This record gives sequence, C-alpha cells and structure tokens, in this order.
Amino acid sequence: MSTPNQVSNQVPDALPGQLPVVGFVGLGAMGMGMALSLLQAGYSVQGYDINDAARARFAQAGGQAVDTLPAVARGAEIVVLMVLNAEQIDQILFGDDKMAGMVGALAPASLVIVSSTVKPTYVETLAARLAAHQIDLLDAPVSGGTSGANDGTLSIMVAGAPASIQRADPLLQAMGKNIYIMGERPGMGSTMKMVNQVLAGVQIAAAAEALALGARAGLDPNRVYEVICNSAGASWMFENRVPHILADDYRPHSAVEIWLKDLGLVVDTGKELHLPTPLAAAAQQLFIMAAAAGHTRLDDAAVIKVYEQLAGFRVLDSVAAPESD
Amino acid sequence: MSTPNQVSNQVPDALPGQLPVVGFVGLGAMGMGMALSLLQAGYSVQGYDINDAARARFAQAGGQAVDTLPAVARGAEIVVLMVLNAEQIDQILFGDDKMAGMVGALAPASLVIVSSTVKPTYVETLAARLAAHQIDLLDAPVSGGTSGANDGTLSIMVAGAPASIQRADPLLQAMGKNIYIMGERPGMGSTMKMVNQVLAGVQIAAAAEALALGARAGLDPNRVYEVICNSAGASWMFENRVPHILADDYRPHSAVEIWLKDLGLVVDTGKELHLPTPLAAAAQQLFIMAAAAGHTRLDDAAVIKVYEQLAGFRVLDSVAAPESD
Repeated sequence: MSTPNQVSNQVPDALPGQLPVVGFVGLGAMGMGMALSLLQAGYSVQGYDINDAARARFAQAGGQAVDTLPAVARGAEIVVLMVLNAEQIDQILFGDDKMAGMVGALAPASLVIVSSTVKPTYVETLAARLAAHQIDLLDAPVSGGTSGANDGTLSIMVAGAPASIQRADPLLQAMGKNIYIMGERPGMGSTMKMVNQVLAGVQIAAAAEALALGARAGLDPNRVYEVICNSAGASWMFENRVPHILADDYRPHSAVEIWLKDLGLVVDTGKELHLPTPLAAAAQQLFIMAAAAGHTRLDDAAVIKVYEQLAGFRVLDSVAAPESD
Repeated sequence: MSTPNQVSNQVPDALPGQLPVVGFVGLGAMGMGMALSLLQAGYSVQGYDINDAARARFAQAGGQAVDTLPAVARGAEIVVLMVLNAEQIDQILFGDDKMAGMVGALAPASLVIVSSTVKPTYVETLAARLAAHQIDLLDAPVSGGTSGANDGTLSIMVAGAPASIQRADPLLQAMGKNIYIMGERPGMGSTMKMVNQVLAGVQIAAAAEALALGARAGLDPNRVYEVICNSAGASWMFENRVPHILADDYRPHSAVEIWLKDLGLVVDTGKELHLPTPLAAAAQQLFIMAAAAGHTRLDDAAVIKVYEQLAGFRVLDSVAAPESD
C-alpha cells in the first residue's frame, strides 16, 4: 500500500482537528454544489472559475474566491478539478500562460482529485505525468446531476492508491452519498463513469424515441409516461427526463453538449479497445442531430426535438383534452 | 358509447353468479400462466395449443384441453389469443384448413381478446374484419414476463369499445395487476406495448453493450452491476437481465427471437408513420447479430454474446478473484 511522500511535503500539516485547505477549480452547475458541500463540511475552499459571476456567487456563499490558478494551489493540500474536459485539465495543470501551470504552484505530495468526465486512458496518463511532479491523482468522476451536487448526495466512482483514497475520503463523504472504490489504477473510476454514460445517454435518447413514436401514433404522452414508469421499459433517465418534455421546459439540468462529449469518449474508448458500441454511437448521432438543430445548450431531453423537427409535429399536441364529465 | 349487439347473441347468458366459458389459444410460456390465472379465478377454460405437451400440461392443471380450434370456440363467450404473431392469429381466425377458421365457430357478439404483440395497424384492421362477423375485438397486449403471467400480475394495455372493456374486465383483473385503458380505438393498446418494447429492447441491448465495455476495460461485472443499479444508468431491464449474464444462465425467460419480431414491428410502424427509430433499429440489428451467431432460442440477455464473440473475450473473465483477507 503506497503512501504519499510526506518527507518533502511543503504544506504545513493541518493542526489536529483542523481540516486541510482545499482548492477547487470549476464552479459550474456541478462544481458549485460540490464546492459548497465542502464549505458546509467545514473546509476552507479556495475556488476558481473562469467565469467572474461564478466566482462572485462562490464568494457570496462564504467561499474564498481567487483570481488565478496558482492562488488555488497556494497552501492547498488537496485540489478538486470539476471542469469540462481533458483539454481544460491539461491547460489548468500544465498550461504556460501566466494564469495557468498550477503544477508549479502545487506542493509535492499534494493530491489532485479529478472529477470531470474524461477518457480513462487520459486519467491513467495524467497520473503518471503528475507523479513526475510528486503529485498524487485520484480518479473520482461523479454521477447524480446538479441536485446530487447541491445536496451532497452524488455517486462518486473512485480509483487510486489506497492512501490517496483514504486522504480524500472525508471530502468524498462531504460531496457524495455512494462512494464506489473501483480499483487502485487511476482510470478505473472513469471507466465506471463511462459505462454509466453508455446507459444514461442511450436511455435519454431512447426515452425521446419511444415517446415520439407513441405520440405520433396518437397516444397521450402523459399516459405513456405513467404506463412506462410501471412497466419493463422503465429507466431512471425516462422517469427523470420525460417530465421536462411534458412540461415543455428545456432549461438545462444537463445539456445536449455534455452528451456530444461523453458519448464521444465512449465511442473513442470502444474504438481503442476494439469493442464495438453501436448503440452509444447511434445515441451520439442523435445528440449531434440535436446540436445541428441548434439545441446544444438546451437540456438533453431536447433530443426529442430531433424527432419533432424531422417529422413536423409536436409531442405535446397529442396530450388528450381533459375529460369534461 | 357502443355496446355489443346482445340481440343476436347465440351464446346462452351465463346464469347469475356463473362465469362465462372462456376459450384460450396459445399455451406457451406466457399463455399457460394467463390461462391458469383464469382457471384459478373460477373460469371454465377451453385451451388449445399446437403443441401436444402443452395441452397435456394444461389438462393436468385442471384446464379443459381441446384438440381443435372450433372446439375452443364452442360455447365460449370470450376467446383469448396469446400466440406468436399476426400470421398465427390470421390462420386461427380465418384459416381454411380443417383445424382453423375459428370465426365460423364463434357466436355473434363473442369477444376476441388479442394479447399477442402485433402491429397496431394489424389490430385495427382485424377489428374491422371481425366486426363484419359481428365479433368484438379487445386489443390487450401484456407486459411483465412469465413471472407476471404465472402470478397474475401482468400489466395489460387495453383498447376497445367501453362495453368490450367492461365485459373483459374480470378476466383482465384475473390475469393482470395494472390494467391501463389506452383508448377506444383497437390498436392503441398495441401502440402502448410497442412504445414499451422500444425501451425494453434498446435497454437490454444497451445493458449488454455497457457491461461488455466495462469488462473489456477491466471492471468486475458484478461491481458494475452493483454501481449501475444505484446510478443514473439504471433501468428495469438492466436490473432484470444482467443477473442472467453474471450467472452465465441463458435459459430463455424471453428469447432473442422475440426481439427480432417486436423490434421489427417498431421499425415497420415507424416507417409507416414516417417517424424514424434509429435506436430501435440499432438494437434490432444487435438481436439479428445474436440470431446470426445461433442464439435465437437463448434468453435475450445472450445479446452480450455478440460483443463477446466479436471481441474474443468473456465478460465473466473480468470477475475479480475473491479477496483473500
């Protein structure tokens, strides 16, 4: 069981009973909730986001908003990254503009928790790159949406050295409810997240396809929702996303563009492993169609607009009139 | 509100408190359970199946096994059809060999309950064809598998004239738990079933794809099952079918061949409605691949063998060794 190299740790040890300073990068829909959960658990959190308004909201909520990435790292023993993708992570850690290159500001034996959804092979390589700087990495993508982030009830799929997992555990417990240890090799957590995304992405698109077919054939979509939630066709995503369609409310909880990325990771990884993913690829195409139609920033349930737009109808037109007697 | 033509009903009215005689065609995995549920509810059931052994089992369970289709109809006020497909229904009702042509043996004002999964347009046309013989049709496909059939806890998706629904209601209550009235137009029940099958079929195939990807990338499939059942990727089908894969047990609950048919109905109906169903079509291809590999009669979870066979590995090879300490 490996332990972080404490000898060269330049971060002063936390006093007994005192929680370590935490850096947090990415105060978006998910990251804000997670950072606030850490605040509520008593951590001092140095938060950064490229967006000024997000930083201001974080400061207002009691966080310590900082203006540069090195300032995130300063004095922080643990840094959580909750940004969009691998390109952003690379820029944050290794970028060479004056804002970036956080690796240079992180003390040896720091721990970087990567909670973004990225390719398993990227995380594995990143762990080796950080190890060259004596920085540990914990692979810790999350599931549970903005409500899970806000409530501190995320599922977190964790992989890394046992000592890193132990070190991160109080933070993971503050942000999540179900902490799943997937293995010691960074990338195993991201693999688990990717498996979840195959199902979640396909099932959002399938919910749209089934609802569109039913409405096109004359069924009341409200009735379809009720029946499916009690039938063998039920899924977590059907139950969660179809109400957005029925309410004609596409304000983004999770946006269409997320699936362009996440299903892309699935298809790429399948390609690398020589493991075909025809359903994930078909679902990815549906989200690309939604993007083509201009719905990138809408809630992912807007994939139903692909069917509606192509077939020239609206699912909600099939809602039955209320019975008069 | 239409009522069945009682004037020309040549079936003697059941005495007060006496249940009508019921005919039942199709004593397969689903039909046997449904027919036995009717028996248990006190109906006298005249059951037929092309398979001698099925008829013998039905007789042993207390049913009245009959040898010909006209014998199913004789004296029966209501007939339930639970056969494979539309071709069989057509042969049973209108066929001209000496066994078939049940329409000639059915009394006017009889009610035929069609519980097979068939195309909505077929049911709608069939209702008109039977109406020409003064026979009523109730569109009543079911969901819930053999366990639901055996326990009398099926979901039944019903469409037809209110009087027919009322007439069939005690039988439906005996066979099912959730009785969903979808509308007055025959075909609406079958449309609802088809919508369920889009989701169910896609989700079985997606369960296989996700599990195969996870195992190929080194995750323990038992662990994947546990995590997904508590995550946003969860579906009824994932929870129900993956245990068959984990147990390496492909004895058919619902066979691969069912999905060749049911997803075929979906794709055909979509084609007729000009409503694209790319996910259902992709899932259909996966079941066709499973059939190509010789797995037609295996449990539908055997669709995972498509991934295993192509990629030359076994999902169960990724099961982690039990921890030694």
